[in-house]
Order: sequence, then C-alpha cells, then structure tokens
Amino acid sequence: MTADRTRDEVAGWWATAVSRIEPGVIELRGHPVQDLIGTTGLTDMIWLMLRGDLPAPRESALLEAALVAGVDHGPQAPSIAIARMAATCGVGLNNAVATGVNVLGDVHGGAGEQCVALLDEICDTGDAAATVARWRARSPYLPGFGHRFHPVDPRRAPLLALVDDAVRDGVVAGRHLAAARAIEELLNARAGRHVPMNIDGATAVIYAELGFAAPLARGLFVLSRSVGILAHAWEETQQGRRIKGPIPPSILPAHLGPGAG
Amino acid sequence: MTADRTRDEVAGWWATAVSRIEPGVIELRGHPVQDLIGTTGLTDMIWLMLRGDLPAPRESALLEAALVAGVDHGPQAPSIAIARMAATCGVGLNNAVATGVNVLGDVHGGAGEQCVALLDEICDTGDAAATVARWRARSPYLPGFGHRFHPVDPRRAPLLALVDDAVRDGVVAGRHLAAARAIEELLNARAGRHVPMNIDGATAVIYAELGFAAPLARGLFVLSRSVGILAHAWEETQQGRRIKGPIPPSILPAHLGPGAG
Amino acid sequence: MTADRTRDEVAGWWATAVSRIEPGVIELRGHPVQDLIGTTGLTDMIWLMLRGDLPAPRESALLEAALVAGVDHGPQAPSIAIARMAATCGVGLNNAVATGVNVLGDVHGGAGEQCVALLDEICDTGDAAATVARWRARSPYLPGFGHRFHPVDPRRAPLLALVDDAVRDGVVAGRHLAAARAIEELLNARAGRHVPMNIDGATAVIYAELGFAAPLARGLFVLSRSVGILAHAWEETQQGRRIKGPIPPSILPAHLGPGAG
Amino acid sequence: MTADRTRDEVAGWWATAVSRIEPGVIELRGHPVQDLIGTTGLTDMIWLMLRGDLPAPRESALLEAALVAGVDHGPQAPSIAIARMAATCGVGLNNAVATGVNVLGDVHGGAGEQCVALLDEICDTGDAAATVARWRARSPYLPGFGHRFHPVDPRRAPLLALVDDAVRDGVVAGRHLAAARAIEELLNARAGRHVPMNIDGATAVIYAELGFAAPLARGLFVLSRSVGILAHAWEETQQGRRIKGPIPPSILPAHLGPGAG
Repeated sequence: MTADRTRDEVAGWWATAVSRIEPGVIELRGHPVQDLIGTTGLTDMIWLMLRGDLPAPRESALLEAALVAGVDHGPQAPSIAIARMAATCGVGLNNAVATGVNVLGDVHGGAGEQCVALLDEICDTGDAAATVARWRARSPYLPGFGHRFHPVDPRRAPLLALVDDAVRDGVVAGRHLAAARAIEELLNARAGRHVPMNIDGATAVIYAELGFAAPLARGLFVLSRSVGILAHAWEETQQGRRIKGPIPPSILPAHLGPGAG
Repeated sequence: MTADRTRDEVAGWWATAVSRIEPGVIELRGHPVQDLIGTTGLTDMIWLMLRGDLPAPRESALLEAALVAGVDHGPQAPSIAIARMAATCGVGLNNAVATGVNVLGDVHGGAGEQCVALLDEICDTGDAAATVARWRARSPYLPGFGHRFHPVDPRRAPLLALVDDAVRDGVVAGRHLAAARAIEELLNARAGRHVPMNIDGATAVIYAELGFAAPLARGLFVLSRSVGILAHAWEETQQGRRIKGPIPPSILPAHLGPGAG
Repeated sequence: MTADRTRDEVAGWWATAVSRIEPGVIELRGHPVQDLIGTTGLTDMIWLMLRGDLPAPRESALLEAALVAGVDHGPQAPSIAIARMAATCGVGLNNAVATGVNVLGDVHGGAGEQCVALLDEICDTGDAAATVARWRARSPYLPGFGHRFHPVDPRRAPLLALVDDAVRDGVVAGRHLAAARAIEELLNARAGRHVPMNIDGATAVIYAELGFAAPLARGLFVLSRSVGILAHAWEETQQGRRIKGPIPPSILPAHLGPGAG
Repeated sequence: MTADRTRDEVAGWWATAVSRIEPGVIELRGHPVQDLIGTTGLTDMIWLMLRGDLPAPRESALLEAALVAGVDHGPQAPSIAIARMAATCGVGLNNAVATGVNVLGDVHGGAGEQCVALLDEICDTGDAAATVARWRARSPYLPGFGHRFHPVDPRRAPLLALVDDAVRDGVVAGRHLAAARAIEELLNARAGRHVPMNIDGATAVIYAELGFAAPLARGLFVLSRSVGILAHAWEETQQGRRIKGPIPPSILPAHLGPGAG
C-alpha cells in the first residue's frame, strides 16, 4: 500500500462534505470561513452546516423563530435541572452542558422528531384520522400535542402565525401545517377535551415545512435548548453551591441522605 | 412547616433569574416568550439568556461573528470525530452531540477561557511582558496563540477587522484587543518565530471586549461548536456505518482488534 | 401542608428500596454498609444492588465470569477509542469514562439486551425457528451471533462451559442456554455458513439464566466495559498526548485538518 | 509509505499495553481471556487492567472493600439523582449511567484523588502539620475529612480496621494510614471540633497504601459508584415515571414550571 493509497483509505473512512481543512484553509460546505465571518448569521450557519446550502431570508427567519422558542422551560425540566446540579460538582461548563443535552432523549427531547414523522405520515397518506388512530393505538401520547402544565402554550400562537404568513407568501407549502391543524381538530372534537399543539408540535411544523428530516427536529432542539442549559449552568456556577441535590436540605426526609455525600 | 414555607424553601433552592414559568406564561429574563418569537435573533437570545439584557446591534454582530467562526474544524478534531463515532453506535442525536461537547475540556475547548483570563490579567496589570513571562513559566502553551497546523489561521484577520471597526466606532473599548496585539508582538519579536493569534485568541478578544466572564468563552464555544458537531453526527448517521472505529479496517494492524466488536 | 406532609411527598417522589441513608446510618438493600465491607465481594454487591438479595456462590461465579469476559476488546472499539481521545482533551477521568460509556448504545452495547429478549421469546414460544425467522425479517443482524473479526470468539467456549456446569449442578435451569444453542444450529445448518455465538450471546445466556431482565444485560455490560474504558483512558493519560485525533498525523490527508485545532 | 510503514504508524498512535486483539485471540495485559474467565475475580481484573499484574489475595481484598464501600450514598447525591432523572427521559441505561458518572467531578467525586495527593505529600515531607496548614490556606475543605451529614461515617471504622490488619500482616506499609491518622489528630485537637476521616479519606488510604496513583482514586470511585448509579437508574426505570423533575409537583411553586415540558 502506497502513501497515496493509505491517504485514500483514510479519506474515505472520514469522508465529509461538511468541511475541508488544509493549512491556511477552512472551508465550511465549500465556503471559505473568512467569507462567512461577519456576513452570515448564526441561524444561516446552522442551516448551511446541516444542509449544504444557505436559506432564503424568510426560511431563515422561520428557523430562527423555532430555535428561539425552545431555549428554556424553567429549572425543573430535567435537562436544565441536571445541568445546574452538574455545575455544582466540579466539572467544566462543557461537561455541565453535555450532561443536560444527554437527557434530551426519546421522551424529553424527542417529541419534535416523532411529530415530524407523524406529520410526514399524514402528508404521505392524506388521511389524518386514520394516521392518528394508528399512532394512538401504539401510545397514549401523541407527540406534539397537549401539555400537562400550560392550558395554552404561549409559544404556539406566534409560531403558527409565522408559518401562516410564510404559507401565504409562498415561502413554504403549508402541507405539514395543515396536517397539524387537522390533528388539533380531531383531538378537540372529542367532547370536553382541548388538546392544542404544544412547542414540540409547533416547531415540528416549522422544521417539516422547511424540509428538515425528522431526526434533525431533535438535533435542532438540542441546539436551541443548549442556550438555556448553558444559561442555567452558568447562573448556578455563580450562585456557588457545592454538590447540589434535588431537594432543599430543609425539607429533606432524613432517610434519603444528603445531596452532598 | 406550612405549604407556603415549603414552597419558599423550594423556590430558594431552585432560584433563578433566567426564566419564570407559570401556567400559560413563559418569561425568559423577564420577556414573555411570545414577544421574543419572530422579533429576536438567535444570537441576541444567547446574549439575553446569559446576561439578562439585550445587546446593541453592533455588539450582537460581534458576538455572532465569533460564534460563526468556531463551528467546525474538520472531522479529526476529537469533539467532531467522537460525535461521528458515537452516531454509529445506536444512540440518539442528542447523545452523539453530548458525547462530542463533553470533550471540549481544558485542553480541547478551554483555550478561549484561559485566553480571556490572560487578557484580563494584562488589562489589570498593564504589563503584557511580565504577564506573558509569568504564564510561560507555568506552561509552554500560551492560550490563544500559535497553531500547529495553520501557518496563518484564516479566521484571525476577519475577526480582528471586525473588532477594529467596533473599537473605531466606540462599540467596545479595545483594551483586550490591545493586550492581544501586545502578546503577538512579544511572541513575534523572538528571532525567526511567528506565533500569531489563533481562533481561540481572536474569539477571546471578542468575548472579553463584550464583557463576558472567562468561563463563558468556553460556554460560547460550546454553543458554536455544537453546530459543527451536530452537522457531522448527522452526516455520519446518513452514511450508515455501524460501530465505526477510528482507523479504516483496510490499514488496521491486526493486533488492535476491530472497531466493531 | 405540614412539614410531615411535605416530607411524605418528597419521600414518595424519591422513593427507593436501594438505599437508606440517615445520620450515621448507611443501609444498602437493608444491609448496614459496615456489615458488607470486608465480607461481601464486588460481584455479590452488584447483584445485591440490582436485585435486593445476595446470590448463591455459584450464581455469583457465573455473573463474575460474564463481567470479566467483557471488560475490553481493544482500542478500536468506539467506546474505548472515544474514552482515550477524551482523556487527551483536558477533562477528568470520570468524564473520559462517561464519554466512552455513553456510546454503548443499541448497536455497540445493546446486543446483549436484545439477545436476552430473543432468548426469552424462544423460551416463551418454544419455537426457535419461527422466532429466528421473525427476527431476521426485521434485521439482518441477529443479536449475539456472528462476528466480523473472530472466526471463533475465544470467550464463547469458557463461558458456555461454565453454564453447562451450572446446568448440570442445578444452579440454573438451562432453558436459555438451550435456546441459544438451537439458534446456533439453525444458523450453521445453512450451507457453508458458520455463525457462532459471540460475547454478547454467551453473556446474554448467563444473564438470562440468572434471571436478569433484558435491559440489565446492557447495564451489566456497562459495568464490565467500564473497567476497560478506565484502563485505556488512564494509559492514554500517562502517554501524555494532547487533543488526540483518530488518525496519526503522519498518514493524514491534508484536507481533513489536524486532530488538534 | 508502504503498507507495513502505515501499520507501524497506526500501531504507534494507538499503542497500548492493555489489550492485544487478533482474529481468535483476546489478550488482556498478556493473559489470554479464556484463562481469565472463571478463574479471576472482578476485583482482580480491575487491578490487572489498571496495573498490568495480578494482586496478592490480601491486596485484592483491601481493594474490594474500598470498592464495595463507595457504591451508593442515597438518591440525593447528584450523581444518583441525575441518573434517575435521566432514566425517565427516554435514553438507554448506558446513557443514564454515563450522565451520572459525568458529574463525579473535582467536587463530587474528586476528594479521594485529592486526598491521595495530600497523603502522598505528607509521606514525602514527613510533616503533617505543615502540609495540612498549606492545604487549608488554599481551601477550607480538607479532602477526605469531615462530613456535613454523618457525625461518624459508618464506613470509616471497618475500612480502617482492614488497613490496620493489612499493616500488621505486612500486606501494606502503613505510611499513608499514619498520615491520615495524623491529620485526624490535628483536626480533632482543635477545641470542640470532631472532624473524622470520611469515605473519601478512608478509601484514599487504601488506594494509596496499595500504590495507586492519585487520579485512579477517582477512577476507582467511578467504577464503585457506577454500581449504585446503575441500580438507581434501573429502579427508576421500573417505576415508570416520564420526565421526572427534581421537585414533586405537589410542592412545586408555580413559577418554576413543571419537570415535564
């Protein structure tokens, strides 16, 4: 095996269209990094890195709204609480953020991904009622709909309004939005029930309308929630506690032991 | 202990100024989320969540340039390589991203944080030479300066040009930029050596000029690099490999064993 | 709500039968810790913590053999390679180990769990052929069988010999062992094929014979492989590299960029 | 570069004395794995993998006692609480364990490592008082001594009794034990204070007497506590909660928002 052959094998194993790095050269999706710095917004950059092209301004605005909407939902969300506790244990901020991000799993962070799959299925079959029935037979939770805490999620209306505008102006096609609204109508048609779209549903509409694959709904939520995770981990760091357990010691039953220990 | 007292204890233990969540209400740093969606950019949101106020447009532009500059440095950076390998092991995209972010430690992702501390120290003491001598006595690596790969880092010039403009227009004071340039001059004054500022140094100048505490230089790099980590993990997922080891099997010495196994 | 009521709520939310911690008291599964120290082996402790009772000596010996067998499979296994790379990035040994453990997912570390489920299904249905056909219709990979690297896995024979002895002496019932052997026969009956049980299969037989639920096959593998992950991360730490990428720089194609950077 | 040269470069980059894996061959620290299965205990295996040789039986017993002592300290320890919360978020058991292990950082899991360094320093200088004074000048926390919860840690006495026996029988030299006892005497000589050795101190004595480097005190604690982390994560999985926040909803102030969300 020659040196060239070896390099070919390595280049194949680590093949990537995301970046090209040579001495003095950094290309991201084919763009020299110096052309991106100062000209390209962070949201455009996210789109570029994930998809290979740059978004139209209205597409970028939709994506940005979804990313902004999901940054935080308070310190009791496990991803946030865990990152705050981690920050008191003597690890780096990167470790605290990673610890929080790590729990954005199928149940805590995966509803958007599942909702995109649900909306895709309705778009494919054209039958919302049958699709919803199929999903509800598998699980009592319909991803993207209903909230145990908010009677109305304040993020739903402004996000859907932006999608409505984008549909009106031909920025996106509106098929996934229609699918999501069809689900809401089905759920609310049941006597005495009100199960509106939640943040996972509203952002799933945006991600799906923009053409992101379902797993990227989780991936984009990770980027969004990382902002809140970092903000909380940093605030906790500044508060200075050490080895913070979940329950304040003042109300802790003795047999559970201390947080510190 | 009354219910009110219990709630006070809990509220104190989990006290936060970052977000306030009540049924139907989500406030982020005092702003109702519905007022932020569609009006506030992602970079402004990062600033708001970390600091409590919104940046001026020129401050936001500087921060955004730094965030864009750091998103990726190719698939051999351990944070990226690890996330790609993780993506072939049957974990969620959130886990793959967390695995990569977790290694942005003192050596791989901490140079920006250390460089802010170095620049702060020069600003405090007013003596670049003595400060650099003190740091070099502790470690051969001066954080933020020099690169084993790029003779000139293509991210340095555009980032510094933006800071120069911001100093000229009074957006930032320029003291940390001056400190960083003083270091460059000291390092380059040594015969036959050229040790320019690298990406960690140039972004540290921006973060420090904007008033971010040193640990947030690492925190902001985590947000930035998460974009590249996600893009690479997703690309690897689409390539479909299972249990990817670091070395292509075709050039692997037999005694190291396979990646898969 | 009284203080007692508050403590009841907390005690319910964090209810555990694993440990009871009071000032001066540490009980693990009902055993005062001072009675366990010096009298109870580590493998017995693992069994106790997971199941609530102590194993018979022969049960413990079987479990220990499975745990010993899985500790390591060389530095190219992603879990090991990732932990070694992490150890060069300036994070704690705990972070390096966690980074490696995190990728023992459905594909890299989950075969044992899936194999226990497969064996359970054969035990339930009594029909190995139909069960295998059903599984193979879903995926080309039959968990626990075949290896791309070892023609014969050297861990298979000694593990199965221990199970044979345990069946002979009435320590375990042998139904899962029989199911696994039935699968081997089915696979090997195909002309010109030899697809023996691998480490995941052989340890799954042990875990299933001992009555562990399928997810604990992954959990126990995590404990086992953590030993190898720690040993490799520590060795890498001692070797002193910084920011180790997957490919040695000497054979790296230039466009992939460096590990360090 | 020839194929041989390429393989040499790869072999050097991934050089390890921990394991050698060839088709049909798995050697761990030079021992064929089939010779270890069924003959070597898990604690001996840990020693072998970390150090390259097998321990004497009395050395192994000491190590095992330390590993058993540290497995768990109740569900409020952040490492345990975090793993339990992770287990409700839809991630694998490996991810839940990794999430918990990741927070065994300098403050939560690093006291043993720091205590070994402290004991080593006393052994080197021969002056406990001066060493303790030096450490106390840097931090109010002396690693390995004192506990905010247990007036007497029930793990201290049985662990030290085992070390006493081992010193008496010449298994270990006893210098680190003497250093730790000297610290206790210094701390307790202060009027009205009782600051006994805690679990980190008692296990640090064992690890140091057995010749483990300081960072391995953290590494060994990781292996030990992983048992408790897994047991708690598994128990939580079986309890079936989804997206568990730290505070029971019944006592949660409304403005903190829900765990789920």
